[in-house]
Amino acid sequence: MKKKNKKINAAILIIGNEILSGRTQDKNIAFISKWLNSECGISVGEVRIIPDKEKIIIENILTLSKKFHFIFTTGGIGPTHDDITAHSISKAFKLKYEFHKEAYAILETYYGKKRFNDGRKKMAKMPRGAKLIYNPSSAAPGFIIKNVLSLPGVPSILNSMIENCKRYLVKGLKVHSQTINLYTVESNISKQLGSIQKKYNKFVDIGSYPFFRLGKIGVSLVTRSTSLSKLKSVNKDLLKLVKSKKIEILKL
Amino acid sequence: MKKKNKKINAAILIIGNEILSGRTQDKNIAFISKWLNSECGISVGEVRIIPDKEKIIIENILTLSKKFHFIFTTGGIGPTHDDITAHSISKAFKLKYEFHKEAYAILETYYGKKRFNDGRKKMAKMPRGAKLIYNPSSAAPGFIIKNVLSLPGVPSILNSMIENCKRYLVKGLKVHSQTINLYTVESNISKQLGSIQKKYNKFVDIGSYPFFRLGKIGVSLVTRSTSLSKLKSVNKDLLKLVKSKKIEILKL
Repeated sequence: MKKKNKKINAAILIIGNEILSGRTQDKNIAFISKWLNSECGISVGEVRIIPDKEKIIIENILTLSKKFHFIFTTGGIGPTHDDITAHSISKAFKLKYEFHKEAYAILETYYGKKRFNDGRKKMAKMPRGAKLIYNPSSAAPGFIIKNVLSLPGVPSILNSMIENCKRYLVKGLKVHSQTINLYTVESNISKQLGSIQKKYNKFVDIGSYPFFRLGKIGVSLVTRSTSLSKLKSVNKDLLKLVKSKKIEILKL
Repeated sequence: MKKKNKKINAAILIIGNEILSGRTQDKNIAFISKWLNSECGISVGEVRIIPDKEKIIIENILTLSKKFHFIFTTGGIGPTHDDITAHSISKAFKLKYEFHKEAYAILETYYGKKRFNDGRKKMAKMPRGAKLIYNPSSAAPGFIIKNVLSLPGVPSILNSMIENCKRYLVKGLKVHSQTINLYTVESNISKQLGSIQKKYNKFVDIGSYPFFRLGKIGVSLVTRSTSLSKLKSVNKDLLKLVKSKKIEILKL
């Protein structure tokens, strides 16, 4: 992974009717986003969930690949008729959709020549020029073409492959984060919080998230910044506010 | 809820850095989508997750409100500085951002005059012309303006409000769905599945989703259609295929 001394961002494109319909609870967004943040210093700037429709996939690939440094797609790279991600990405970039020699060889070895049927062969088809993202759990590789990385939708398989994406990514500035959990309500601190956010404006993001725990209401204050020193001083200000309001801190 | 004899669609716009960063696992997408499907005959066609940034919220509100019959936003309608959804939607539609009289009265009664501070008052500010979506669990109402319905991000509060959205929606054709769970692998049936999908092309969507259960691999075949009779006949075809391949059906 190369290193760049600047912010690197990514988008996640979840392809699949089953997520859109609510039938399946997505687990990939949080997993990919946390991994990118902590391992690669890459922030996810946008997520979209779209149906398995060629035209829609093409539009979104073209839009997002221009707006972000990297795009992660999940879903639609299996053997069935509704797996159209690789074909649609080929079309989006006007590249031939063809057998990837190494992917073909990997799958043929994995299944054995006799059981390497057409459905399984389909999983070796990719946009021309794609590089493989190896799959240690079920063989069928993902791929990267231009700045688009295609991964499967099944979380356990995706999780096993994520480390193999690293070689294709550029490492950005790490975003550090700190959380203070308070037993108070947002409106008790909202005014002062707004002033502190203004003071640190472009350097630190302060997020305020209500929670409920054991029948008590609380607020999590999450601060995020690429600068550790700015993060420290914003947290000092927050603790001052907490003290002045005599708010109880919840230690986890 | 009015009834229309056609397909009605919706988009969901999740506004919040905490979801994008993976800190919080979203639960609202699946909940809203299932509810719209089952209660209103409305299909979710796209979901986007975006940060708390005014410019980005405005762009997405304008794009999605043109493409879909209804937009549901979640998040960003609380009392703190990072709650900018109502203000951004006002800007998007070039409407004044002002106190909603009824919302103000509801919140003043709920908190009592003395404790009705500026943060809490902020929750009564909305785009001019907005109608309220009542909140039975924590008083602060959501709102609808044009075709955009704004709900809070906290799942328990959102869930308590969802029924109050109904009066503003138009009921579409219900999408029926059926699932067959099979102990097989996708590539064993992918070819025939493709042919069956082709036969029913525009009338039925067939989705194929691998699963793992108690160490065995399986596939869920999910069929979806607005026509119950078409759904029945596609499922007959699928069961024929299952029988011919001697595949075990998993009964749940």
